[in-house]
Amino acid sequence: MRLVLAAGSTETARIEGLSAAGADPEAMAYTPSADAEVLAYGDVVRAPSVPVSPTGTPTPAIVTRAAQEVVGFDVTVVDAGLAEPTGAPTVSVGARPGEDVREADPVPTAPGAFLAARGVGRSLPDDHLVLAETIPGGTTTALGVLRALGEDAAVSSSLPTNPIERKREVVSEGLAASGLEAGDCENDPREATRRMGDPVLATLAGVATGALAAGKRVTLAGGTQQLAVAALARHDGATGPLDVATTSYVADDDAVAFRETARRLDCEPTVTDPQFDRAHVGFGGYVDGEAKEGVGMGGALALANATGDLGAVRDRAGELYDRLVGDATAGGES
Amino acid sequence: MRLVLAAGSTETARIEGLSAAGADPEAMAYTPSADAEVLAYGDVVRAPSVPVSPTGTPTPAIVTRAAQEVVGFDVTVVDAGLAEPTGAPTVSVGARPGEDVREADPVPTAPGAFLAARGVGRSLPDDHLVLAETIPGGTTTALGVLRALGEDAAVSSSLPTNPIERKREVVSEGLAASGLEAGDCENDPREATRRMGDPVLATLAGVATGALAAGKRVTLAGGTQQLAVAALARHDGATGPLDVATTSYVADDDAVAFRETARRLDCEPTVTDPQFDRAHVGFGGYVDGEAKEGVGMGGALALANATGDLGAVRDRAGELYDRLVGDATAGGES
Repeated sequence: MRLVLAAGSTETARIEGLSAAGADPEAMAYTPSADAEVLAYGDVVRAPSVPVSPTGTPTPAIVTRAAQEVVGFDVTVVDAGLAEPTGAPTVSVGARPGEDVREADPVPTAPGAFLAARGVGRSLPDDHLVLAETIPGGTTTALGVLRALGEDAAVSSSLPTNPIERKREVVSEGLAASGLEAGDCENDPREATRRMGDPVLATLAGVATGALAAGKRVTLAGGTQQLAVAALARHDGATGPLDVATTSYVADDDAVAFRETARRLDCEPTVTDPQFDRAHVGFGGYVDGEAKEGVGMGGALALANATGDLGAVRDRAGELYDRLVGDATAGGES
Repeated sequence: MRLVLAAGSTETARIEGLSAAGADPEAMAYTPSADAEVLAYGDVVRAPSVPVSPTGTPTPAIVTRAAQEVVGFDVTVVDAGLAEPTGAPTVSVGARPGEDVREADPVPTAPGAFLAARGVGRSLPDDHLVLAETIPGGTTTALGVLRALGEDAAVSSSLPTNPIERKREVVSEGLAASGLEAGDCENDPREATRRMGDPVLATLAGVATGALAAGKRVTLAGGTQQLAVAALARHDGATGPLDVATTSYVADDDAVAFRETARRLDCEPTVTDPQFDRAHVGFGGYVDGEAKEGVGMGGALALANATGDLGAVRDRAGELYDRLVGDATAGGES
């Protein structure tokens, strides 16, 4: 089993009030590069700090790394349009950072990245790939892709109160700028990600369809962004089995209808409750609905649950938090 | 412990008769990209085939991968100027492929790569880094760097009969083209790699000096190319302890004087005999003096020897050879 993290960026994240994937807009630009480092090394290396939300809730990369350390799976990061350098090793698929989805052609590298990523998914030597993402603003571009494909589905948020009306406005503006109406990209996933998506969605859809074509098992680890990946794979004609594994924080949001949407896309949903509580200062924000998911956290927890390691992963995540975030001198000193 | 592989290229490898790191010149261009994949995944992914010499001796990447599987250390690949795409995840330090060392300024990215790599070496979270290389033609550029630094040292070869006279001619032409005499780059390792070296030497010297400055243990895994890295580190003023670990195939070459040169550069030499014999078809070429070293093989075998796993690594290397090279349909089918 190998976890494949697509790390990238979209200027859509700069629209105010859309994302909590960083302490402030400047820090948010480094989030995917930092998440990649936390996952690859258990610490930041080149990025300035471990990502936290504006209220201090830590990146789910800490939880996924904890699961990797306890369960021991392989990890590969794909550069799906990073805007800032990372010290993590990355596979190149030719993706560049995405522009604001309200532009006419925000992701011109999407079709090429999709095809290169398909080759990666096909040829990785593992029987089972677990796909993960990190991209601030990614739920808005996921909504954009779902609308472009004509799929009726809602999306989640890294904020406790989902700014869903603002996302819908942004997507409507984006469709108008691209000269599209909802459904115009039906069965054309490359065009959907190019006009209304982001480079991470294009990359993951490519990896997923390549892996399915080669007969591998594919788990989409994440929330509504991974439902968009599932939709892209289905609109590409992929008929193989897809699991989608997320946290209870996403699945319990009735507005999202996670399980129903997954099943409509012919995906088997798996939902894991991390059982975080406010006893540990680091993860209280998750109880309050912050972050919810990301960097494959739902899939990593599902693996830990399957091996009986959920408690050990939670403990390890707490230790990592204390070392990486709790100590204010950590991260930037080296 | 983490093995850091710098994978890159120099046009110097195109000079006829200098290198056996590929079945033919076209295949040789892919060798570093393929070696990175073999080390990262245990198979090629994007590269066309597992590298072999013109006579069929397999890349030492197979042995290092076998050691990684048996001993279980972390691996990070740095893109030190790859000329062809790789499916392995790589850290970027801004290195570009090196030109022919007979040009005036063959590696303009060397100083920048040196500095970026120094940051990587300093900030990787491990107490012990084992540095490895893969670059066809690299012993010639190693000779070039040693001459530029004014170090009196010979270099080894991936060919059974070392074309040392041809290398000396190439280096003399390179010095003349760069307007340099031997020793002109004393205490200036960045200029030495830029004018007379390759991007792999610049990258490894940067990683080594950064790691030493941060108090990490550094093992240079390889033959005479790693002696050039040691010389670069010493000429940069690094005074920390350096080990250099190679195979008996390099160390038994009297013309090279491996141990003596290592000690003169204040490096502790470790020599490991892989104990290959002709019983296994894959590694008979090593007994005859082909390949000898590369992709950190000497360091990987030293680790295996220290943990009592040398026999297990040799067995695993044989299995990998059978799967990757012995079966003619392997590698290119996916």
